[in-house]
Amino acid sequence: MTEYNYDLFVIGGGSGGVRAARIAATHGARVGIAEEYRYGGTCVIRGCVPKKLFVYASKFSEEFEDAEGFGWSVGERSFDWTKLIAAKDQEISRLEGIYRRNLERTDVDIHDSRAVVEDAHTVRLLSTGQTITAKYILIAVGASPNVDTSLPGVEHVITSNEAFHLSELPDQIVVAGGGYIAVEFAGIFNGLGVDTTLIYRGEEILRGFDRDLRTTVREEMEKKGINVILNDTFSKIEKQADGSLVGETKGGRSLQAGQIMFAIGRRPHTSDLGLEKAGVEMDKIGAIKVSDDSQTSVPSIYAVGDVTNRANLTPVAIREGHAFADTVFGGNAWTVDHSLIATAVFSQPEMGTVGLTQEQALEKTPDLDIYKSSFRPMKHTLSGRDEKMLMKMIVDAKTQKVLGVHVVGPDAGELAQILGVTLQMGATKADFDRTIAVHPTAAEELVTMREPTEQLRG
Amino acid sequence: MTEYNYDLFVIGGGSGGVRAARIAATHGARVGIAEEYRYGGTCVIRGCVPKKLFVYASKFSEEFEDAEGFGWSVGERSFDWTKLIAAKDQEISRLEGIYRRNLERTDVDIHDSRAVVEDAHTVRLLSTGQTITAKYILIAVGASPNVDTSLPGVEHVITSNEAFHLSELPDQIVVAGGGYIAVEFAGIFNGLGVDTTLIYRGEEILRGFDRDLRTTVREEMEKKGINVILNDTFSKIEKQADGSLVGETKGGRSLQAGQIMFAIGRRPHTSDLGLEKAGVEMDKIGAIKVSDDSQTSVPSIYAVGDVTNRANLTPVAIREGHAFADTVFGGNAWTVDHSLIATAVFSQPEMGTVGLTQEQALEKTPDLDIYKSSFRPMKHTLSGRDEKMLMKMIVDAKTQKVLGVHVVGPDAGELAQILGVTLQMGATKADFDRTIAVHPTAAEELVTMREPTEQLRG
Repeated sequence: MTEYNYDLFVIGGGSGGVRAARIAATHGARVGIAEEYRYGGTCVIRGCVPKKLFVYASKFSEEFEDAEGFGWSVGERSFDWTKLIAAKDQEISRLEGIYRRNLERTDVDIHDSRAVVEDAHTVRLLSTGQTITAKYILIAVGASPNVDTSLPGVEHVITSNEAFHLSELPDQIVVAGGGYIAVEFAGIFNGLGVDTTLIYRGEEILRGFDRDLRTTVREEMEKKGINVILNDTFSKIEKQADGSLVGETKGGRSLQAGQIMFAIGRRPHTSDLGLEKAGVEMDKIGAIKVSDDSQTSVPSIYAVGDVTNRANLTPVAIREGHAFADTVFGGNAWTVDHSLIATAVFSQPEMGTVGLTQEQALEKTPDLDIYKSSFRPMKHTLSGRDEKMLMKMIVDAKTQKVLGVHVVGPDAGELAQILGVTLQMGATKADFDRTIAVHPTAAEELVTMREPTEQLRG
Repeated sequence: MTEYNYDLFVIGGGSGGVRAARIAATHGARVGIAEEYRYGGTCVIRGCVPKKLFVYASKFSEEFEDAEGFGWSVGERSFDWTKLIAAKDQEISRLEGIYRRNLERTDVDIHDSRAVVEDAHTVRLLSTGQTITAKYILIAVGASPNVDTSLPGVEHVITSNEAFHLSELPDQIVVAGGGYIAVEFAGIFNGLGVDTTLIYRGEEILRGFDRDLRTTVREEMEKKGINVILNDTFSKIEKQADGSLVGETKGGRSLQAGQIMFAIGRRPHTSDLGLEKAGVEMDKIGAIKVSDDSQTSVPSIYAVGDVTNRANLTPVAIREGHAFADTVFGGNAWTVDHSLIATAVFSQPEMGTVGLTQEQALEKTPDLDIYKSSFRPMKHTLSGRDEKMLMKMIVDAKTQKVLGVHVVGPDAGELAQILGVTLQMGATKADFDRTIAVHPTAAEELVTMREPTEQLRG
C-alpha cells in the first residue's frame, strides 16, 4: 500500500476548502492545504464580507438625509474613501487570521503557495516546486471575475477585485453587468456619492430572479439617482489624455467615467491547474464536473464550491466541503440538497428570496395564487423618502403550498433566512395565516395577506 | 321581535373594535361605533405607531457616531423635539383618517362620543345623551396607563400618554417601571440626548421574558448610558421652585429630573362604563371576563382586546375582533389561539421572541438543549460600537422540537415574525439545520448552531 504524504490535500483556502480541511482533520485525517493568495477566499477577502461593509458605509448618506424628517439637523458631512479601505483591510486581515488559526488548531498543514495537480494523487507547490502526495485531493479554487477579452480597451477596466482596493473614488463610474455583483456595486458607489451608471445588455437587471423584484429594484435604484441603461453594451473603451475613460456602446452612447467596472459574470478558476492532464473532466466554461457527492471523473479527486458552478454561494460551498469530509473521512455519507436555497442581494433596497419565482412556478403548475403587497416602509412615512417595499408570495392554488417568497426592502436578507426554514418545512399559506402578527414590523405583511392579488388558472 | 337600532354597537374605535365593526358590516350587519378620543386606539394614537417613530428618531444619534468608523465625518447635529412631534402628529392624523374612511366605506355609523352601557342591549352616548339599542354590544375600550395613586406627588408624573405630547424634551428624565414600555421609552429618551434613568422595583427588567435576554438588554442599555436602578422604587415626588422634580426612593436615593414618567403597567379602561349595572363580570383589576369566543357573562355583550387582559397586543385584539364578527355575523365560528404569540420589544437593542422562555420550558420538561450565540453584529466590526447580539434557541432534548427562539439585536422583531411561522408549524432543530445559510446575515446564526451550549437533563 502506497504511503501518501497526506490523507487529504486541499487546493484553495476559501470557505469550502477550509471547512473540508478542518472537518477532515477532526475526523482524524492528515490534511494539507495550499492557497495562492489569502486564506478566507473570495467571500472573506474580496466578496461577501468587504462588499457588505461597503454597503453599510454607503447607506449612511441616506441616513443623514432621512434624519431630517425626524427633527434632526445634520451638519456638513464628508466621506474619506481611504479611511474606509483601511478599516476594511484591517477587518479582513483579522478574519483571515481567524481562518488560519482555525486551520492550525485542527493541525492542518498550511502552505502559502499556488498548487497544481500533477496526477490523481499528486500536487505540486509552485513556490518551491515540491511535490506532495495525497490519498485524496480536493479542488476548491473558486472562480474569478470575467471580462470580455475581445473588447478593445478592456485593459482599462476594473473588476470587483480591484474595486476593493481603488486608491481613490472616481467622480463618475460605469458598472457593466446586470447580475447581483453589478447591482450591489452600483448601489455602493452611488451611496458614496459617485455619479453612477449601470449598463446591461439584457432587457432587465437581475436575470433569474422574480420579474416583479427585478423591476422594483431597478426602479428604486433609478429613484436613488443611478442611471440604468438596458439593452446596450460597450463596443470600445478608450483612455483620454486626462486619465479618464470613454466607453462607446453598441447603442451609440458615449459614457465618460473615472473608472469602468465589469461585473459580467465569474468563471471557474481552473486554467493551468493541471486538471486536463490528470483527467479531470470540465464543462465548456471550465467548471469541474462532479457527482452529487462532489467526486470528479478521477475517483481520488473531489471538487467543491464555485469551481463546480453549482450554486455559487459561500454557505453552499461550506456545506459541500463539510459533506465531502463527513462522507470520505467521517463514515457519515450525506449530500447537499441544492434545490431550495434562500439568498440575499445587498442591493439598495435589499432583496431576499427563497423558492420559485413566478416564472419558475408557472412551469410546475398553471394554477397559482399570487399575493403581492407594496408599501412604504414605516420609517419613510417620516423621512419622506419615496421608497417602496415589496413582498410577494407565490402559492400553489391546489395544494396551498407556498412555492416562493420574495422581498425587496429593509432587512430582506434577514427575512429570507428564516423564510428559508418555513419553505424547507413545506409551509402552506395557512401556516402563515395562522401566525399572529408582530406589530409594527414589515414582516407582518407576510402573515396578513388575506386575498390573492392575482389568481392564475391553467 | 324587538327592533334594535343596530345589529352591533361597538364601544371603542381602536384596533379590535374597528376590525370587528368592519367585518361585521361586511357580513351584512348594521353597525354603529363610538369612540371618545380618536379613532385608531392606543396602537395608532399613543402606542405602537408613534412609539416606533420615536424609536427611529432616537436611533439616528448612533448612526452619526457609527458612520465615522466607515470613513464619514459628520458635522454638528442638533435635534428639534417640536419638529418630531409635529411630523409624528401629522402621520398619526393621516392614519386616523384612514381608520375613519375604512369605517365609512363599510357603512359603519361613526359616533364621536364616549358611550356607556345601559343594559344588555342599550348604550348611551354621553355627548348627546342619546340612547341606542343593539342586538349585540362589543366592548373594545382598551386599557390605560397605571399610576400609583397613593404616592405623594404622583400628580407631577407623566405617563406614556403625555410623553407623546411633551412641549419640550427635559434634560433629565427618570422612567419608573421595568416592562417593555418603560424600557422602550428609556431607549428613546436616551437616544434623543436626554440624561436617562430607569428605576424598577424588581431584580431585573422585562419580567416574563427569557432571563438571558433580560440581562443582555439591560447590560446593553447601560452601555448606551442609561442609568438602570433595580430593586428600588419612588416613595415621594416633589416639585422644586425651578419646576424640576425630585423623587425620593425607598432605597434612599434622591433623583432629580425635568420629567418623571411612570410606566408601571396598564389597567383595563372599564371605570364608569356601566358594566356592573348591566351585569358584566370583571376581575379584580377591572378586566372583563370572557369565554374563548369573547362573550361576557351577559350573552349579548362581547369584549375584545386589552379590556379583557388576555394578550395585550394589537394583532391579538384585531384577531379577536375578527373572530367575533365572523362567529356572530358571518356564520363562521372560530377562536383565537393565544398559546403561541411572537412579540417584539423595541428596546435598543431590539428584542424579538417566540415560544417558551428557558424558565417556562423547564416547567414542561427537564431535558433541554440550549443553543446560545452571542456576537458582535457585522456593522459594529467597523463602527467599533461595543454592542452584542444574542440568539438563543431552546430545544426539547427528547423530541428535538424547538420550544422557543429569542433574539436581541438589529431586526429582532422582523425575525420574530417569521420565526413565529416556524414554531407555529412545529419546527424541530433539524428543520433549522437543514436550511442553508444566507450569508452574510445575522439570522444565519440560527441555522448554523451545531452544538448545544448547554444540555439540561432532569
